[in-house]
Amino acid sequence: MATTRRTAPISIDVTDRPLPVPGFRLAGISAGIKANGRPDLALIVADEPVSVAGVFTKNRVQAAPVRVAKERAKAGKARAVLVNSGNANACTGKAGLDATKRTTEAVAERLGISAKAVLPASTGVIGAVLPAETIVRGSDRLIEALSSEGGADFARAIMTTDQWPKVACAQIRIGRETATVLGIAKGAGMIHPDMATTLGFVITDAGASPALLRKLLKAAIDPTFNAVSVDGDTSTNDTVLLMASGKAGTVRAGSKEAATLQAALTEVLGALAKSIVRDGEGARHVARIEVEGLANDRAARAVARTIATSPLVKTALHGRDANWGRILAAAGRAGVVFDPDRAEIRIGDETIVRGGMPVGKDAEARAATILQAAEYTIRVTLGKGRGRAHYLTCDLGPDYVAVNANYRS
Amino acid sequence: MATTRRTAPISIDVTDRPLPVPGFRLAGISAGIKANGRPDLALIVADEPVSVAGVFTKNRVQAAPVRVAKERAKAGKARAVLVNSGNANACTGKAGLDATKRTTEAVAERLGISAKAVLPASTGVIGAVLPAETIVRGSDRLIEALSSEGGADFARAIMTTDQWPKVACAQIRIGRETATVLGIAKGAGMIHPDMATTLGFVITDAGASPALLRKLLKAAIDPTFNAVSVDGDTSTNDTVLLMASGKAGTVRAGSKEAATLQAALTEVLGALAKSIVRDGEGARHVARIEVEGLANDRAARAVARTIATSPLVKTALHGRDANWGRILAAAGRAGVVFDPDRAEIRIGDETIVRGGMPVGKDAEARAATILQAAEYTIRVTLGKGRGRAHYLTCDLGPDYVAVNANYRS
Repeated sequence: MATTRRTAPISIDVTDRPLPVPGFRLAGISAGIKANGRPDLALIVADEPVSVAGVFTKNRVQAAPVRVAKERAKAGKARAVLVNSGNANACTGKAGLDATKRTTEAVAERLGISAKAVLPASTGVIGAVLPAETIVRGSDRLIEALSSEGGADFARAIMTTDQWPKVACAQIRIGRETATVLGIAKGAGMIHPDMATTLGFVITDAGASPALLRKLLKAAIDPTFNAVSVDGDTSTNDTVLLMASGKAGTVRAGSKEAATLQAALTEVLGALAKSIVRDGEGARHVARIEVEGLANDRAARAVARTIATSPLVKTALHGRDANWGRILAAAGRAGVVFDPDRAEIRIGDETIVRGGMPVGKDAEARAATILQAAEYTIRVTLGKGRGRAHYLTCDLGPDYVAVNANYRS
Repeated sequence: MATTRRTAPISIDVTDRPLPVPGFRLAGISAGIKANGRPDLALIVADEPVSVAGVFTKNRVQAAPVRVAKERAKAGKARAVLVNSGNANACTGKAGLDATKRTTEAVAERLGISAKAVLPASTGVIGAVLPAETIVRGSDRLIEALSSEGGADFARAIMTTDQWPKVACAQIRIGRETATVLGIAKGAGMIHPDMATTLGFVITDAGASPALLRKLLKAAIDPTFNAVSVDGDTSTNDTVLLMASGKAGTVRAGSKEAATLQAALTEVLGALAKSIVRDGEGARHVARIEVEGLANDRAARAVARTIATSPLVKTALHGRDANWGRILAAAGRAGVVFDPDRAEIRIGDETIVRGGMPVGKDAEARAATILQAAEYTIRVTLGKGRGRAHYLTCDLGPDYVAVNANYRS
């Protein structure tokens, strides 16, 4: 970790090495849920009850662990998070619900805590009941493996077809203390057809009330995990949990420290979100779609999302084609009122549309060069309003189709 | 044409050979708009002013011809429709608007009618101003080519990258007269990246007031042109126009004949819509997504649309994979309330999900066989409500990406 400064959120550093977070121990082991023997069972345990906040999929079809974790997170306090990969335990009815409860009870009993203090999360194949006994058998070994240095193992054990583990850290000052924010996630979307089950876990030794924690998480989620698109599909298992131990001091609502913690959370979730988009199989480019000039942020968000999920836009990005017609047409069908004759589109620093009309072939050719890059920004200005929003998306290549058409064959 | 019966809408026959429609003449010629010399300019002329109704793209970005035709169609009466392919005249500002007006004025002058009675429509590349003088130069030849047998030429002249012309006919009885309904369309979507500009034109010698015609067209459009998806993108140029000469008698609102005309219109537009989906480049399957059991049709429609546009569902169809998890997950994110534990999914006659859970691997294997067919139905039942809707979609294969990534390169 490099330097951290006292107040400015901008000084937060993000790294991919998991730092220990006082008050928490983590573990990840191979329990035998995955047929290939890879790590598939993970645990976070707090030394004592800590504040917790969660956000969950809005899909009507919610996996058993989502239903259980959602209910338990309402208490605002928790002791542990039990995660498995290899099985999403979704569309599994009462048997799936029972299996989820059984596994959290087994771990809780061994830890000497209440099962209600254990929040479950699952990722993997949909439609198969969680193999509860496999997890129960592994639970002693899982608990033995707990360590303040266990972040890397935890990150690997929640992966499905992720190409790399996804970890981000930040440090902030609370008074004289240095607090750490550690985020761990797994990818989703194009690379994980049946497994479009983004999971994210953030732990920090900053402290906050459950109410403040919920507020901070909600604000950090919107421009990060809620502003990425691989293919527009949402999942049965999406879960992000935030736990705060307070070992490094407590932040109060409205304080300077709360603002700093907010910024750190947003940075950490933002880094994880970008890593998820970049890990799209077949994806060669990460595009940041920025929309501005609309009446409000909500309208801008609708337009950004529509552009970011348009197959015609995403295939053009794959072909490195500055195809502004598709971008403008996608904006036009977002259900938002704007005057197309004022539309401006920039790719990087290159303006290719002004006053709703093309600038010219030379500008498009220069923009096509920018589209060769691994990362770039497309800025769409649709008026003079103050509403703005962004979305991260990736290109759509033939590998997307190959992976998703043949995933189960 | 085979037999037609007196009342039952079910007796309507749909064919792909354009029949003449009394009161109308059509033409299609090569005017030089397309660089490759293929037919690109088309005209329908009514012998006298006829009732007209139109539906237009809801995209905020509307091409010049859409803006002009929309305004002129408000009168409820028209004499002619002037269509070009090869140039969409979209995102072309005032110059585009002037070009559209100039071409309809030239044709109107030669026909001795008012320019306001000529409705324009364009399809082709976005962002280039319509070459008005090329069209003006071709207008004498276009008018000379007018014939009651000109439907086939018209159909070919409005094609862009369509693989075949799209024509459907129906005949109905009005009293002792036989009336014809002729529909001509062009494809859109995946095969036409910059040209996602569905156009449809229907003429009939049945007669109806402009108000009734609007009502009939609206009702026929919803389950047909508004219920197909190739990739979820809408266009700058979408236009469907309906003209009724009344040469075979007039139908009144609420009459048996109005119901028959309604059914004929729906059949004709339905046949054209299916032809458009089938013509998706790289598409091997046409899937009819039926959703039922919801509180109302609107909710069912939202679910059907979400399933029909999901890239994860469409790639699974390409791989002939009965991947019900993706279908259910897409339904769950449609913003509609339902109980996932009551969900049932059938592919053809094979039930693969019951009570929100998989029936089993054998059922899925049998369903996969059904997915080999060129056409099949996927029925999703989400409760006991009376709301139902359907959508036509196609599979998403590697050719979609290849065509759309490299379209302009």
